[in-house]
Amino acid sequence: MGGDAGPAAILAGAAIARRRHPKVRFLLHGDEGVLKPLLTRHRALLKCAEIRHAPGVVHMSEKPSQALRRGRNSSMWNAIESVAKREADVAVSSGNTGALMAMSMFRLGVIEGIQRPAIAVIWPTMRGQSIVLDVGANAGCDASQLVDFAIMGEAFARAIFGIDRPTVGLLNIGEEEVKGIEPVKRAAHILRASKLPIEFCGFVEGDDIGAGAVDVVVADGFTGNVALKTAEGTAKLVTHYLRSALKRSFFGRLGAILARGALRTVRKKLDPRSLNGGVFLGLNGVVVKSHGSADALGFASAIDLAIDMASSDMMSRISSDRAGIIDVAEDPEATSNGAGKAQAAVS
Amino acid sequence: MGGDAGPAAILAGAAIARRRHPKVRFLLHGDEGVLKPLLTRHRALLKCAEIRHAPGVVHMSEKPSQALRRGRNSSMWNAIESVAKREADVAVSSGNTGALMAMSMFRLGVIEGIQRPAIAVIWPTMRGQSIVLDVGANAGCDASQLVDFAIMGEAFARAIFGIDRPTVGLLNIGEEEVKGIEPVKRAAHILRASKLPIEFCGFVEGDDIGAGAVDVVVADGFTGNVALKTAEGTAKLVTHYLRSALKRSFFGRLGAILARGALRTVRKKLDPRSLNGGVFLGLNGVVVKSHGSADALGFASAIDLAIDMASSDMMSRISSDRAGIIDVAEDPEATSNGAGKAQAAVS
Repeated sequence: MGGDAGPAAILAGAAIARRRHPKVRFLLHGDEGVLKPLLTRHRALLKCAEIRHAPGVVHMSEKPSQALRRGRNSSMWNAIESVAKREADVAVSSGNTGALMAMSMFRLGVIEGIQRPAIAVIWPTMRGQSIVLDVGANAGCDASQLVDFAIMGEAFARAIFGIDRPTVGLLNIGEEEVKGIEPVKRAAHILRASKLPIEFCGFVEGDDIGAGAVDVVVADGFTGNVALKTAEGTAKLVTHYLRSALKRSFFGRLGAILARGALRTVRKKLDPRSLNGGVFLGLNGVVVKSHGSADALGFASAIDLAIDMASSDMMSRISSDRAGIIDVAEDPEATSNGAGKAQAAVS
Repeated sequence: MGGDAGPAAILAGAAIARRRHPKVRFLLHGDEGVLKPLLTRHRALLKCAEIRHAPGVVHMSEKPSQALRRGRNSSMWNAIESVAKREADVAVSSGNTGALMAMSMFRLGVIEGIQRPAIAVIWPTMRGQSIVLDVGANAGCDASQLVDFAIMGEAFARAIFGIDRPTVGLLNIGEEEVKGIEPVKRAAHILRASKLPIEFCGFVEGDDIGAGAVDVVVADGFTGNVALKTAEGTAKLVTHYLRSALKRSFFGRLGAILARGALRTVRKKLDPRSLNGGVFLGLNGVVVKSHGSADALGFASAIDLAIDMASSDMMSRISSDRAGIIDVAEDPEATSNGAGKAQAAVS
C-alpha cells in the first residue's frame, strides 16, 4: 500500500469512504507494522477493517512483467487476489498502473468475448463529466476492440452517471464519413449495423471531449493517451499563463486576491486527483487505479467509484452486449437477429 | 479572397504586413469589383499591390476533389498558380484547407523524396512556441513519412524561430523504447541511425507539447489533429470554468474587473488567430493557410510567416536531408556514408 502520499493518506481516504458507505468492509493490504498504528487513528474504520499483512511492494518503476514474476507477495497482488477469491468485491490501488493491469488480467481474467481490457478516465467537460477510453492499455486497436470499448464505456457511464442511455462517440479527425483511419471507420460501421441498445452518435473530434458532446468517447489507447496528456499539458499551460499574467501588475495581483475563491474552484475542477485516475474495464472483477498523487479525499472518491461499479450490472451488461456484437461481426446477414437477441437479454 | 472576416480584413492585414516589409509586393486575387474600392483605403498598399481578377470562389463546404474540378477560375487557384509560375514567392489564403492543400499539391507538386506534404502549426508553450506536425493532412502514416515530417518540421523551426539546432521529438505514449505504436518506434530507429544534422530527442508525451519540451513535435496527422483539437477544447474548458467561477461571487466579479488586463493577455495568448492556422510543408512552393477567423492582425502574421519561410533555405534543406535519409532506409550498410553526405551538403 502506498501511492505518493503514503499509507496514511490511503487509510484517511478509507475512513472518509466508510462514513459515506457505512455498510462497506475493508481489507487493508500492506505492511502490518506500518498499518496497525495508523489504523488506530481511525476508530470507526477500525471496526470494519481488517489488515492483511503483505511483505512485498511493487515499485513504481517496475515493468509489468517484472512485477508479475516478483510481486506475488506484494500488497497489490494480494488485493487483486482477494477480488479473485470473492473475499472482496473491488480492489482499489494507487500503485504502478502497468503492474496493476498485468496482475489483474492474470488473476481475474478478461470478460468473455472482450479481447483486451481498457483504461477509462472521467473527463471534466462544459456539461459535467464524460468517460474517455482507452487511455493507454492498448497502443494499437482494431475495429472490433474499439467496439468492445464502446460497449464497456457505455456500461460504465450507466453505472456511475446513472444515465439510462449514455451517448457514445468515436474519436476521429472529422465528422464526415470519409475522414479518419480505417479501424475507426470500420468500428462506426459495426456499431451502426449492430443495433445494440447503445446511443451511438458517430464521430466526435478532439474539441468535442471538453465540450461534453457525448457521454462516452472511444479511442484506441495511443490516441486516447495522447489526448489525455495533451489536455493535462494544456490545462497546466493555461493556468501558468494566468498565474504569470496576474503577477505582472498591481491590479492583477489585487484582482487575484479578491478572486482567489473562484481561482481555487477552477484549480479544483482541473485537479487530476478529483478524477480518480484510471478505471480498468473488461475484467472479471472491479479494479480502480487511484491517481498516484491522490490525497485522502481523492482516494475516497476512487473507493466511491469502485463501490458504484460493484453494485451495478455493469459486467453482465458488457458480457451480453458483446455477445450481440459477435453475431453481427461474424455473420452480416444475421445482423438484426443477433442484435435483437442481445437487446432483449438486457432490457 | 475571403475568410470569415471578408476581403476588407485581408487587405487591412496586407497593409500591416507592407509596413513591416516595405519591399514586398502583393498580388491580390479576388473579385476586382470588391477589391478595387477597398484597396483605395490603403494608400501605401495601393503602390505595391496589383489586383488580379478572379470570378470564382472556393466555398468552405466544398470537398477537395470538387474544388480541384470546379475551382480553376477561383482566387485560390490563381494565388497558387502565381507561385507555380514564379510570379509570387508565397501564397497566403484563409480559405478551405482541404481545397488549398489539393490545389497546392496538384499545381506546385511535392518536394522530391518527400511522400506527402504535412500541415504544421505553431503551438504556444511554457517556454515560448513549438512546431507540431502533421495536424491533419495524413490520417495514417508509416515510419518513413514520420521521418519526412521530422525533417520538414526541423527546417521550418530553423526558418521561423531562427534556432540553429531545433530539438525534435516523436509524439508517443511513454518515453520508454518499448512503448507505442510500430511506425513511431521505427521512425525513432531511422532518425537515430541516420545521423542527420537533426537534434533528435526521442519520444515526447502529450503533456510535453504544452511544456515546450522540444521545438518540433512529430505525429501522424490523425494523432496530431486529435492533440490539437483536444488542446483547443481544453483551453476553452478552462476559460469557461474561470468565467463562470468569477461570475459566481461579488469578489470574483470585482477581482475579474481589476485583473481584466491580465485576463486579456491570457485570452490573447490562447487565441487561435495569433497562431496563423496551418502551414503547408513539403511542397515546391510556400503556402500558408491563415486561420479562417483571422482578423487583419492575424492575417498580417500569416504573411510575416510566409515571408520568413520564403527567405530561408527551408526547401533546399528539406530536399537534401531527405536525400540522406533515403540512403539510410534503403541500405542500412551505407548509413554513415549517406548521412555524412547530407550533412556536408547543408553545413
